[in-house]
Amino acid sequence: MTTPLLENFVAGRWQAGTGAGTPLFDPVLGDELVRVDATVLDLPEAFRFAREEGGRALRALTYAQRGALLSQMVKVLQANREAYEAISVANSGTVKADTAVDVDGGIYTLGVYAKMGSELGERHFLTDGDLARLGKDPLFQSRHVLTPTRGVALFINAFNFPSWGLWEKAAPALLSGVPVIVKPATATAWLTQRMVQDVVNAGILPAGALSVICGSSNGLMDQLQPFDVVSFTGSADTAAVIRSHPAVAQRSVRVNVEADSVNSALLLPDASAEAVDLLVKEVAREMTVKSGQKCTAIRRVFVPQGQYDAVAKAISARLAKTTVGNPRSEGVRMGSLVSRAQFNAIQAGLAQLKAHTTVLHDGTNTPLVDADPAKACIVAPTLLGTTDPDGTAIVHDVEVFGPVATLMPYRDIEHAYTLIRRGQGSLVASVYGHDAAALSAAALELADSHGRVHVISPDVAALHTGHGNVMPQSLHGGPGRAGGGEELGGARALTFYHRRSAIQASTAVLDQLA
Amino acid sequence: MTTPLLENFVAGRWQAGTGAGTPLFDPVLGDELVRVDATVLDLPEAFRFAREEGGRALRALTYAQRGALLSQMVKVLQANREAYEAISVANSGTVKADTAVDVDGGIYTLGVYAKMGSELGERHFLTDGDLARLGKDPLFQSRHVLTPTRGVALFINAFNFPSWGLWEKAAPALLSGVPVIVKPATATAWLTQRMVQDVVNAGILPAGALSVICGSSNGLMDQLQPFDVVSFTGSADTAAVIRSHPAVAQRSVRVNVEADSVNSALLLPDASAEAVDLLVKEVAREMTVKSGQKCTAIRRVFVPQGQYDAVAKAISARLAKTTVGNPRSEGVRMGSLVSRAQFNAIQAGLAQLKAHTTVLHDGTNTPLVDADPAKACIVAPTLLGTTDPDGTAIVHDVEVFGPVATLMPYRDIEHAYTLIRRGQGSLVASVYGHDAAALSAAALELADSHGRVHVISPDVAALHTGHGNVMPQSLHGGPGRAGGGEELGGARALTFYHRRSAIQASTAVLDQLA
Repeated sequence: MTTPLLENFVAGRWQAGTGAGTPLFDPVLGDELVRVDATVLDLPEAFRFAREEGGRALRALTYAQRGALLSQMVKVLQANREAYEAISVANSGTVKADTAVDVDGGIYTLGVYAKMGSELGERHFLTDGDLARLGKDPLFQSRHVLTPTRGVALFINAFNFPSWGLWEKAAPALLSGVPVIVKPATATAWLTQRMVQDVVNAGILPAGALSVICGSSNGLMDQLQPFDVVSFTGSADTAAVIRSHPAVAQRSVRVNVEADSVNSALLLPDASAEAVDLLVKEVAREMTVKSGQKCTAIRRVFVPQGQYDAVAKAISARLAKTTVGNPRSEGVRMGSLVSRAQFNAIQAGLAQLKAHTTVLHDGTNTPLVDADPAKACIVAPTLLGTTDPDGTAIVHDVEVFGPVATLMPYRDIEHAYTLIRRGQGSLVASVYGHDAAALSAAALELADSHGRVHVISPDVAALHTGHGNVMPQSLHGGPGRAGGGEELGGARALTFYHRRSAIQASTAVLDQLA
Repeated sequence: MTTPLLENFVAGRWQAGTGAGTPLFDPVLGDELVRVDATVLDLPEAFRFAREEGGRALRALTYAQRGALLSQMVKVLQANREAYEAISVANSGTVKADTAVDVDGGIYTLGVYAKMGSELGERHFLTDGDLARLGKDPLFQSRHVLTPTRGVALFINAFNFPSWGLWEKAAPALLSGVPVIVKPATATAWLTQRMVQDVVNAGILPAGALSVICGSSNGLMDQLQPFDVVSFTGSADTAAVIRSHPAVAQRSVRVNVEADSVNSALLLPDASAEAVDLLVKEVAREMTVKSGQKCTAIRRVFVPQGQYDAVAKAISARLAKTTVGNPRSEGVRMGSLVSRAQFNAIQAGLAQLKAHTTVLHDGTNTPLVDADPAKACIVAPTLLGTTDPDGTAIVHDVEVFGPVATLMPYRDIEHAYTLIRRGQGSLVASVYGHDAAALSAAALELADSHGRVHVISPDVAALHTGHGNVMPQSLHGGPGRAGGGEELGGARALTFYHRRSAIQASTAVLDQLA
């Protein structure tokens, strides 16, 4: 019996691929669920339709009107939430709380940009900064404006966030007036496809505003024209291929990349016992949420030398209490990896790290709840450690994309900074302590090598939003190894989808562009 | 007799290349002037020294302190202005007014950023926007900061602005706290090298803050690390090589490109006679300033069908009055191209365009003043025209980097916009008319395909700063074919040299980062 073949939505209509299709699986049970295929789609037509029809229709709307469309999308997605949860459990193998991070996180982000639309109001362009004088006479000045780019936004997305990964990009794009074509990662494409289907069927967006292509990404980059943009989340290797593609290298297509990241948690010297507890709790949480399949998850943990053993014990104790297994079973706190391929990659990465580190908490023998170890792509959390962080290059270079982190001691704070910087640029670092001056100094010191620094102190123990949770109000992205991209950050996200231009004119002309 | 070999300044000392050197010529007289060579420089040491020594020293200073250094540099450069004029006339073959665009334009830009430094004050980082709430409780919030990137800024520069091209990039880099390594284009490297020499010898900047490498660019990109940035001005072909280099494609080195640009001038329908005159004057000026060797120069001129003949005549009449020849001769308004290679490239490009257009004003037979046509790289201005702008693709695609422009008629304003957009993204368009509403509408329409729109109306006839003049207060760059880069734009220029980071923390911590 063949499984259903998911259709693609391009050029304003649902279109099935003509190939056999690539199957998607339940990573816990091993069952084939659905298939995806993009064979012989007319990609030039798909991109032209989105760029011309979708773009024209979206640009004809104001920010407030586009924000209202996002609000309607939020309602449709909320109404279908149960279906998304079912798909997420089946296809991603996640427990309910982890599904929420992806599904509700995506819908929340869409809601934030919907609200921003109403705040931006009934206008078709944005101003950027104040008027600037170009000489002594104030009659001739310069005003910078942001206008929507006349192209499509292509999203080549990662497998770990089929919902959030779509909406955190699509929300600012659509609000900016730029049509979206999303190519979800095949392993978990179902949820993305289903959400797009619900929005499309609700008839909210103009034709061409939102397209989805499931299956191979072959030929997508070839379609990009100078005013298109592409946003990629995934491996550094694929990022390099995208950046070297003629669309980017020759046609100046704007590209945003989020790639590997070996994120850090830093316990400050002389941190209070409460702060130590906060670090322990956060590390254990970050290792296990979504089975460690978050690009923002903590991979490296730095503590003062004297606290290495105590912290190792405390984190291990927490991990030991984490029940791991079939996400459908009551009481299971951590579910599966998304696929056999990821399972194998994590086993290989773990073996690599283990060759240079000590195992402080071993996940290998953790019994799985209600799951067949021969079938299920489940890996229990493993805490590694090394007391030679300077000599162990691999822990700073290799991101194992699962429930794995490495604990390391540092001598003094400068040593800690040096070690953290060996990550060569990360998405996020978290800092733990109780002294505001010491915390702010550390945050500033880490700022240039991280897109986000998350500071956890006892006064915000119950309030902080989590090391790995990406809030739409804050920048998401990181320099260097993390890809150098910038997403979200409130209204900053709109910049990627707009063109900045300086208009130099008489004040009579500029007055019309306020 | 061999000419002097210019030295490179890297790793804090002057170093001569060990090769025979590449000669630089006087493009009017044909004489060899100096030689440049970078053979067997220790590039890893050069970049490490700049990155570590220069970066550390610059970051230790505040914006105000760095601004004060820029002020001192302005004084040194002003004091040596005569030497720069001599080098410019000899090596670039420019008349005094054109030399001023490059030399004084560069010094002015440096001065603008010097002043900005004192305004930014005694601080080591910048805040970006307001605090953002991350939930209902205001105790945990997000603040975005900009901190200087811990790397070097490599500038690979173009031949047409050896002074301005250096300082428009170096001013915001140094103000940001980022050390600079400049590789000027070989043909005109002398002026860049001399200006760096004067600043270095004045002992203003900390060691490693400013380096110059003259000669081949071989191996420079290989030195770049994840926190370095590279800014390139030049051809689209070289830009593609830079973007595909592993430093950019794999190590996420931030890159800024300014490449080809087929800029437009647009006379609005029903423009007043005064506005028509302003267009005529500006086109003739843009074609001849620096012999058309400005990336911002007008290459395409669009006028309503009914005004095609009259405008053709008026521009031609102005061009006919332009005296062309040896820039040392009294009364010569337009000098030489910078090199024999450029002379040949312009002849070839002109022949290409001529095959598809009509010659409205022929520069071929213009007698040169005090210059030997067999030796001098001088080309008099040529105005081309075509009454089939839709069918003549080449005029929208090929930038002839000399005193050449093409006049075209349009049917209605939408037709004009369509034709202008066939440039696929340009640095600048200028719009001419007298009605503020029509001018602002046109400016907004052209904004997304241009980094700058320059609006000329009779009320600012005596005030406006010129289509092709780049003012540091306004963005310089353009999407698509123009490279997709952003330079200048006042404080916006600092962003390229900073890393943006969101710090999420308790307000007690964030208060320390105001």
